[in-house]
Amino acid sequence: MINFQTSPERYKHWKLAIHGGVARLSMDVQEDETLGDGYKLKLNSYDLGVDIELADAIQRIRFEHPEVGAVVITSLKPRIFCAGANIYMLGTSSHAFKVNFCKFTNETRCAIEDDSRHAGRRYVAALNGTASGGGYELAIACDEIYLVDDGNSAVSLPEVPLLGVLPGTGGLTRLVDKRKVRRDRADVFSTLAEGLKGKRAKEWGLIDDTFPTSRFQEAIENRLHDVTQTVSFRHPNDTQAANDQGSQTDSLRYEGIKLNPLQVNSTEDSREYKYVSLKFHRDKRYADLVVRGPECWPRKSPEEIQRMGDDYWPLRAYRELDDALLHLRVNEPEIGLVCLRTEGEIVNVVSLDDELAANRDHWLVREIILHMARVLRRLDLTAKSFFAIIEPGSCFAGNLFELVLASDRSYMLNDPHENVEIMPTELSAGAFPMNNGLTRLESRFLGEPKKAFAAIAHKAPLDTEAAEAAGLITFAPDDLDWEDEIRVAIEERTSLSPDALTGMEASLRFAGPETMDTKIYGRLTAWQNWIFQRPNAVGPNGALTNYGKPTKAQFDYKRT
Amino acid sequence: MINFQTSPERYKHWKLAIHGGVARLSMDVQEDETLGDGYKLKLNSYDLGVDIELADAIQRIRFEHPEVGAVVITSLKPRIFCAGANIYMLGTSSHAFKVNFCKFTNETRCAIEDDSRHAGRRYVAALNGTASGGGYELAIACDEIYLVDDGNSAVSLPEVPLLGVLPGTGGLTRLVDKRKVRRDRADVFSTLAEGLKGKRAKEWGLIDDTFPTSRFQEAIENRLHDVTQTVSFRHPNDTQAANDQGSQTDSLRYEGIKLNPLQVNSTEDSREYKYVSLKFHRDKRYADLVVRGPECWPRKSPEEIQRMGDDYWPLRAYRELDDALLHLRVNEPEIGLVCLRTEGEIVNVVSLDDELAANRDHWLVREIILHMARVLRRLDLTAKSFFAIIEPGSCFAGNLFELVLASDRSYMLNDPHENVEIMPTELSAGAFPMNNGLTRLESRFLGEPKKAFAAIAHKAPLDTEAAEAAGLITFAPDDLDWEDEIRVAIEERTSLSPDALTGMEASLRFAGPETMDTKIYGRLTAWQNWIFQRPNAVGPNGALTNYGKPTKAQFDYKRT
Repeated sequence: MINFQTSPERYKHWKLAIHGGVARLSMDVQEDETLGDGYKLKLNSYDLGVDIELADAIQRIRFEHPEVGAVVITSLKPRIFCAGANIYMLGTSSHAFKVNFCKFTNETRCAIEDDSRHAGRRYVAALNGTASGGGYELAIACDEIYLVDDGNSAVSLPEVPLLGVLPGTGGLTRLVDKRKVRRDRADVFSTLAEGLKGKRAKEWGLIDDTFPTSRFQEAIENRLHDVTQTVSFRHPNDTQAANDQGSQTDSLRYEGIKLNPLQVNSTEDSREYKYVSLKFHRDKRYADLVVRGPECWPRKSPEEIQRMGDDYWPLRAYRELDDALLHLRVNEPEIGLVCLRTEGEIVNVVSLDDELAANRDHWLVREIILHMARVLRRLDLTAKSFFAIIEPGSCFAGNLFELVLASDRSYMLNDPHENVEIMPTELSAGAFPMNNGLTRLESRFLGEPKKAFAAIAHKAPLDTEAAEAAGLITFAPDDLDWEDEIRVAIEERTSLSPDALTGMEASLRFAGPETMDTKIYGRLTAWQNWIFQRPNAVGPNGALTNYGKPTKAQFDYKRT
Repeated sequence: MINFQTSPERYKHWKLAIHGGVARLSMDVQEDETLGDGYKLKLNSYDLGVDIELADAIQRIRFEHPEVGAVVITSLKPRIFCAGANIYMLGTSSHAFKVNFCKFTNETRCAIEDDSRHAGRRYVAALNGTASGGGYELAIACDEIYLVDDGNSAVSLPEVPLLGVLPGTGGLTRLVDKRKVRRDRADVFSTLAEGLKGKRAKEWGLIDDTFPTSRFQEAIENRLHDVTQTVSFRHPNDTQAANDQGSQTDSLRYEGIKLNPLQVNSTEDSREYKYVSLKFHRDKRYADLVVRGPECWPRKSPEEIQRMGDDYWPLRAYRELDDALLHLRVNEPEIGLVCLRTEGEIVNVVSLDDELAANRDHWLVREIILHMARVLRRLDLTAKSFFAIIEPGSCFAGNLFELVLASDRSYMLNDPHENVEIMPTELSAGAFPMNNGLTRLESRFLGEPKKAFAAIAHKAPLDTEAAEAAGLITFAPDDLDWEDEIRVAIEERTSLSPDALTGMEASLRFAGPETMDTKIYGRLTAWQNWIFQRPNAVGPNGALTNYGKPTKAQFDYKRT
């Protein structure tokens, strides 16, 4: 079983050091500390275990070290920054694992960009050696890339020429869409196994600058000094704070909070967190995922929230939800359908949302909201079907109403003798954007935008008939049909081709505009899925299979 | 060998009738008239041969019948409109053929939408019976969909539940992006093998209206009458003409031109058209594609162009180029690289472009430019590598300069003793948009938009050094290196994994914004590629393999 929980004192492959507003994330992969058997993590190559630590480090910088203004990512190995995903690990992994591995590394890269975009923290890739494949992809997730000019070190995407697959962490998309490298140069670069060194790499826009070995460290330090001094490190809504304090920001006025390990009680067919439960019905290939809403209490001030730290419901519940989703993805591949359920009082969720909205300019509350948004996007990108089941005692309101909107379908009991309600709040109007840049309400009502406004403007619970009339749910079976209808829906869904469902859901969930993120997940990932299945990559004569062997790949040259 | 040339008198599966400004396209598939062996085209199901006729009919309506204001697509079979792509044909086709088949049908659907968008012609799908799968996808490519309410007829996308694959002609994307069907309803609809009938289909936005059998024909005729009378059938630039003439348009003032069969001389290793040559180097897996530029003549008036008809260079050369591309796609799967070459005088191409630009408000010239744009988009979407080879005697100017921009790379000889030049013209500034909505210059210079402007503003030929400085070419080898460099580039390219190249090129060619078209080609097609390869679809126990057999599909339920 793969565990997504870690913390800096348990890191095997990364060193995290914080000093003077700068976080230094140094990669030093221990080649024998692998997540699976049968491969060694040479040359700072990585497997999922290495990326889990990176994802954890980025999350911790945001919550535990809000004073950090710049993050530098570098390597402790001489002459090598990072060789990318380990090929032997890929060669011995199942297709489903490979795809989930690529997805998680993409989410980690997007988390870097999310931090940069929303918190203004600047990410600097200090390539003190060659960055190839996923190593260079990690670099292009950063805001700035500096490469040592030592006559040897290069940046490269050797996947196409060496492995017969694509750079799997959005590399091609970021090349032309983020760094806006000319497409013919991107073509040349992506077919050049050895990559490009300093001068040419800079000329083509692959890196921002290059420095000889003797000046490299100094140049990086100078740049970090400039970044922390002059780059406007402030949150988007901090104009007031920035005006008041010059280059000071409100983050600097607060201490971070500690992210403690999640407590989870795991049995054969369940996983119990404090606010989240997972129950597996493996014979029927579905799981119930229950989120328990917050308790009622008087509205808290930012200082009280800060004191509660990671025990504050929105942070705790969403960290647990995140862990549950990751667990479902990699540890429960045969679970095809997740029934999302909630338990609690709508009024409590709504007061909590009001509290979040009222304090959204406070750095911690903002980070918490951004975290909730990332977890909800993780749900959008999870290759399982989601049905929201809305029954008496549920609390699909406010932030938890997003679970209904994120579901592929929702079923809401229509029983006049029971109290069954849902309630959107203001937070659904922009706090939790999807990868396509729209809110889930906007995505739902692309053809009837007034309904998205109406849902927010309503500001009161909707019973089943009102919810149906407002277009907020899919089906409203009455109490006589309820159990049968849910049972049949589950049976039907789990009988369908899991591959067709994955493709269908990925297509239907992201209507409307596209962004770099949706391109990365929807387009590149789909291409990568396809190529990873092809005999030219993974067959006995495939390039991935034959990598590092004396034998050479033999291709079927038919173009598709 | 598959032949893409046809004409109405040779149609086997469609009837095209023109009367009173309305074109009636009636599907009546002859089940034994198949392109391949081993299947029958029952229930108006289609293979590539059926779609080639449809594509031809749409093209002919535009060129031969500009007076047509509405096109109604219907069926001559009782109770069935169209059952979609023939499953047994798919089951017996190679993967590469399936993917190219889906691509061509998508291009045909996009050609319908292109006509509707640019010429204002209204497409009406009159579903006199069930439209399932590709049948419904053909309907959603139209502007309006009407379904008979006979107690039986339905619209459906049964691919996921019945076949374990996706609706392959952009069905899912058009459902949520074009018709803006709510995503949960799209989810339900796309998993419902039997689809939805009149009332519910209308309520969910899957069709525009439904009429009982007794009133169906009359309702369609009324709608067509309204369309031709009141829907503004005019070209986007026709405001003047429309104002002058009321509901009359300039198209009505012109006769169509005849599209005669292309003459092609085919040998074992070449295909010779009038202005286009294809030469195959099959042992080296590449082909040369040469386009010969126009002759010099005095500028022609629209009337003279109209008299030249399909012999006018831009129409003839681009029809030939289109045919050559389609031939390469389906008849030459092992050709992985196409070297694009031109022969002629830059000055002639430039005067021709001036002539096109000066007459672009004339209906025929506008149709010719729109056709050139479609052919260039066909090139963008062709799964082959393209290298532009720029040598003495070439004429990569104006519209032919788009071939350089559309190429994955370009090589331009740098020899001071030779006259080697290129020259962009005004036509590159918007006449030939890519599927992403940008010009090829804009796509090339996403990061340096000024260079796109500068290329247009230059208005003079650029020699090799100037072209390189302007960022318009990739490589400029000198005469000593030229032959070796081209030879090595060809050898290297054709040695790479064809699958990885297809994915890489599809990713790099479409930087920048996404549109419904890029979603359909880039995202849905990639998913479809993947799913079409999976054992759950095409393995011995797969759903596609077992369709119509007494055996049932057995899935590996692991989610990917």
